[in-house]
Amino acid sequence: MISIQKRKFVQKLAQKKFRDTEGMFLVEGVRSVQEAIAAGVHIEVLIAEKSAADAGNLAGLVKNARSAGIEMCILTTQEYGQFSDTVNSQGIIAAVHKPEPQSIESVLASMRTMPAMIVALDAVSEPGNLGAIIRTSDWFGASAVLLGKGCVELHNPKVVRSTMGSIFHLPILEGLDLAAVLPQLREMKWQTFAAEVNASEDIRTIQWPDRTVIVIGNEAHGISAQVSAAAGRHVFIPSFGKAESLNAGVAASVFLSHYALRNHDH
Amino acid sequence: MISIQKRKFVQKLAQKKFRDTEGMFLVEGVRSVQEAIAAGVHIEVLIAEKSAADAGNLAGLVKNARSAGIEMCILTTQEYGQFSDTVNSQGIIAAVHKPEPQSIESVLASMRTMPAMIVALDAVSEPGNLGAIIRTSDWFGASAVLLGKGCVELHNPKVVRSTMGSIFHLPILEGLDLAAVLPQLREMKWQTFAAEVNASEDIRTIQWPDRTVIVIGNEAHGISAQVSAAAGRHVFIPSFGKAESLNAGVAASVFLSHYALRNHDH
Repeated sequence: MISIQKRKFVQKLAQKKFRDTEGMFLVEGVRSVQEAIAAGVHIEVLIAEKSAADAGNLAGLVKNARSAGIEMCILTTQEYGQFSDTVNSQGIIAAVHKPEPQSIESVLASMRTMPAMIVALDAVSEPGNLGAIIRTSDWFGASAVLLGKGCVELHNPKVVRSTMGSIFHLPILEGLDLAAVLPQLREMKWQTFAAEVNASEDIRTIQWPDRTVIVIGNEAHGISAQVSAAAGRHVFIPSFGKAESLNAGVAASVFLSHYALRNHDH
Repeated sequence: MISIQKRKFVQKLAQKKFRDTEGMFLVEGVRSVQEAIAAGVHIEVLIAEKSAADAGNLAGLVKNARSAGIEMCILTTQEYGQFSDTVNSQGIIAAVHKPEPQSIESVLASMRTMPAMIVALDAVSEPGNLGAIIRTSDWFGASAVLLGKGCVELHNPKVVRSTMGSIFHLPILEGLDLAAVLPQLREMKWQTFAAEVNASEDIRTIQWPDRTVIVIGNEAHGISAQVSAAAGRHVFIPSFGKAESLNAGVAASVFLSHYALRNHDH
């Protein structure tokens, strides 16, 4: 049985302040927890709901957690409700240690394969959007995701959930000053493409280079003036209808898929 | 001043049952209401919040509504709160008559330009997803959106809001039996492409024909077996990372952008 103290500790991880001071966060749902175990991240404790465990929904997961030597406890539905903020909970939640923050230099140094593509996000503020963009970045083979200032916190439970495990698949750097980072990347021969409505280049004309950085902006305000000025190229998605704009997650997926589907032979 | 009776009537439009029997729905937010006025749909009444009107946020809109002869009333913030279900309300909401339902035949007959592309949605159940897919379909020039059985209701306020006005830009047909409609379209020389994870054709190999139908499935379960069997071709989006799947809205935007960016000269 988990101690009252530890239980309170895990509950507090729902608060950003506590996640920041403790360097841990919550991971909820079968797939996400499985990905956390598979990625070998440090899991403090795993909490399961009795009815989900009894129903056999967690069988594979519990087995994996046991063989990884992860502390685990099973709670009643009522007790479990104190931990989960989702209506459709899958009955499993983990308290996970954040990985050591990486520097851009070390992430770049560890990239072995070219061509490579990096996603940089300027003030993406909606948790579901950020999670979906990370998941899409993973799908289309991004080497890293850079979160600029003003992005919603990466370890927000809704962001973590929306990544569907992709948060454990690629390096994600937080709190960057993109206006300073983009020029740094350009000096290292990365080409930086800002996705903007009023841009000079049509995405259909782009030949993606071996070192590509795709910059996506805020849902309502796009890319900030400073970050835009720091980007080398400015690219728009042409419209063929009457909609005034695309949502930020959709714009990101158009850029990422265009990059990946153009650049990989089949 | 709006009568108590009419006020209650508008409030009730928050319920699906009432929307169905009355043939009306609610449109909220400056852009969406502006698009409704511009599209010339029949607006029963327009309700504005006094503080938003005083702040001048609604100036252009109120002017357009006046010249279109639309009944309008201005309420205090407290009164207005009864109508709006959003936290960040923009202080404007309209009760709008649903357009006359169109048949597929009449929609097809009114298509003048080729190549043309139709989006068919099988049980897309998340309101924000459906709205975003309609907005993206509009952006990439779809000629129509077909909603199969099991899709969330088109006139759900969250769907309407997420379309950002695109609900007024292209024909959207509801409640279709796609397993019957797709073969009908195929007989009329439309090629039907089902977006599926385990499909035979790689999207990179597709040459989109002049008459293209793109079929997108449910967020969790994909396209149903019957609808899949009714589609002529089955197409997957290749993965270059470790994510297990893409979300339905992202998959739709990858297909729609691939179609539009490939098919239109620049």
